[in-house]
Amino acid sequence: MTEPLSTGATIGILGGGQLGRMLSVAASRLGFRTHIFEPGANPPAGDVAHVVTTAAYEDEVALRAFANGVDIITYEFENIPTSALDILEALKPARPDRVALRVSQDRLVEKAFLTDLGLKTAPFAAIDDAVDLAEAMAEIGLPAILKTRRFGYDGKGQARINTPDHAEQALADMAGAPAIFEGFVDFSHEVSVIAARNAAGEVACYDPGENVHRDGILHTTTIPARLTASQRTDAVLLAAKILNKLNYIGVMGVELFVTPKGLIVNEIAPRVHNSGHWTQQGCAVDQFEQHIRAVAGWPLGDGSRYTDVVMENLIGDDMDRVPELAAEANTSLHLYGKSQAKPGRKMGHVNRVTRGGSHK
Amino acid sequence: MTEPLSTGATIGILGGGQLGRMLSVAASRLGFRTHIFEPGANPPAGDVAHVVTTAAYEDEVALRAFANGVDIITYEFENIPTSALDILEALKPARPDRVALRVSQDRLVEKAFLTDLGLKTAPFAAIDDAVDLAEAMAEIGLPAILKTRRFGYDGKGQARINTPDHAEQALADMAGAPAIFEGFVDFSHEVSVIAARNAAGEVACYDPGENVHRDGILHTTTIPARLTASQRTDAVLLAAKILNKLNYIGVMGVELFVTPKGLIVNEIAPRVHNSGHWTQQGCAVDQFEQHIRAVAGWPLGDGSRYTDVVMENLIGDDMDRVPELAAEANTSLHLYGKSQAKPGRKMGHVNRVTRGGSHK
Repeated sequence: MTEPLSTGATIGILGGGQLGRMLSVAASRLGFRTHIFEPGANPPAGDVAHVVTTAAYEDEVALRAFANGVDIITYEFENIPTSALDILEALKPARPDRVALRVSQDRLVEKAFLTDLGLKTAPFAAIDDAVDLAEAMAEIGLPAILKTRRFGYDGKGQARINTPDHAEQALADMAGAPAIFEGFVDFSHEVSVIAARNAAGEVACYDPGENVHRDGILHTTTIPARLTASQRTDAVLLAAKILNKLNYIGVMGVELFVTPKGLIVNEIAPRVHNSGHWTQQGCAVDQFEQHIRAVAGWPLGDGSRYTDVVMENLIGDDMDRVPELAAEANTSLHLYGKSQAKPGRKMGHVNRVTRGGSHK
Repeated sequence: MTEPLSTGATIGILGGGQLGRMLSVAASRLGFRTHIFEPGANPPAGDVAHVVTTAAYEDEVALRAFANGVDIITYEFENIPTSALDILEALKPARPDRVALRVSQDRLVEKAFLTDLGLKTAPFAAIDDAVDLAEAMAEIGLPAILKTRRFGYDGKGQARINTPDHAEQALADMAGAPAIFEGFVDFSHEVSVIAARNAAGEVACYDPGENVHRDGILHTTTIPARLTASQRTDAVLLAAKILNKLNYIGVMGVELFVTPKGLIVNEIAPRVHNSGHWTQQGCAVDQFEQHIRAVAGWPLGDGSRYTDVVMENLIGDDMDRVPELAAEANTSLHLYGKSQAKPGRKMGHVNRVTRGGSHK
């Protein structure tokens, strides 16, 4: 596809969670329809999509029908089975493409890609067994984190090793899955850059946000982040380097550790990112629309920021706070329409505008 | 209904145009689903609604099924047949209620309501025939506008009378419908107040915007409007007076003429309003969400403005400008997904943020 998608076209989205939901809303703003493909019933994105297909990623018939019914395909999460992509990509363009997925689906491949690009990461080693782990502990040192190479998110599939006697349990936690050992990084705080690149090779980055996690899940993102001018420049150039190397099309989240020795890449996510939700307030074009623009072959929008924002995730029981949050000044509430507020489940977020308000 | 609607509840919306579309998106932000009732096929709101009913307002079975499938009912336009409301209101709360509809569906009733409230309007007279018209011309004078009392919008059902010899054609243009004669108002510009009131009686108003029309259709709304501090106060108090008198629940657009002798009410619209589209940029809570909050029994959100905005409507062939508009700085594009760009048809709008951007 070289022509930009026209109003009325349909964008297929793999995954029907809150990211698919907000992508769907952004697509509507540009006059597009969306078709959600999601194995789970009643997905949050289904409330605002034109069509929903409820089927497994192994359902070849459903995948083909989905691809035939859309103009292009994108996704809200990176763990799409390769077998599904094989079927889909034969029928319609998928953006970002499988190169980005391949890199980000495997933490080891991702780290190797980043270091090949001259970027700094935590020291790492591939771990298949106790021997590998013993060697890594000796070479890289402790504390460290053992992570499954694939399918980990929000702190799942991770085990911390503070002392050698944690090693056995950590390895057991991996349940036999190939793992990666990541050495300790002495960072002061974490920031992330939400970057976008379109088919024409244009790159745009939002102002970096500063992330605070709680129980392994993003708690708040504050914009602007605490960064020196040169760190800010480094962060943006580094993100652009990653997107350009991958010939990436879409929005990517790049998580960075801020250390006295410079920025260290924690991980990349080839999709819209929780730490970019703040862009819904205070930018003419938010990350969701930026992603849709990129995958639709449109020019990127203006992501300039015209206010400070603090984004706070609403997790599980935080939903009990909705009545008071709804009445708060300078606060935009975003709920995902999920029926059950389980512990650790992302139920919504708020964006608090922290500057401006001269006309209150 | 006294309890606020909970996440997952369904809001029924009568009308599936762009206002219903943007209401549906706003409802999703608060975790609600929407069900659109619309006679026309493939309505714009259908792209982002959970359920769409395609049926006529005379279809009692469809109306009943719709009402039974939703928690509350609201609408995107004021010309809902009373017979449909009779059926719907017996089953579920409709907000705003029929009092507001009755007042705004008939220009004569509206003008009488406003003057009874002590507010200024253009001089007016009821016109049923040529005798009424001759009397009105003699008493109120020319130039003037003859309008159908009901079902007029965007300059439709209106005829200007500059000299007495226009009278016959103007009356013929009414096609026998009851009409209203409106005298000339010497105004410098038009502003509108987007006001909201909820079930608890809270009232909130957005900053007034200044409207420019072209060919009888809103062309731009600029915020802030040119108003003195006392005019601004008058505008807001006057809008609040109207909403309170009607025990109104929801968002209302109040159009005002600015004259040397004060503010004159042009008309009221018991719904979200084209001149309030600018609130999508630069406010924590936009007019669509404010309406959903009000009808859902929620507290009103903070509509404080933190940037200047110019909204421009995209009408008909303006769609040809989308490629350039999409690449403009500081510009948010909102397209309605309508397939045919007919002359005079509202296809979308842009919001241009005109202040701020300190981080470009």
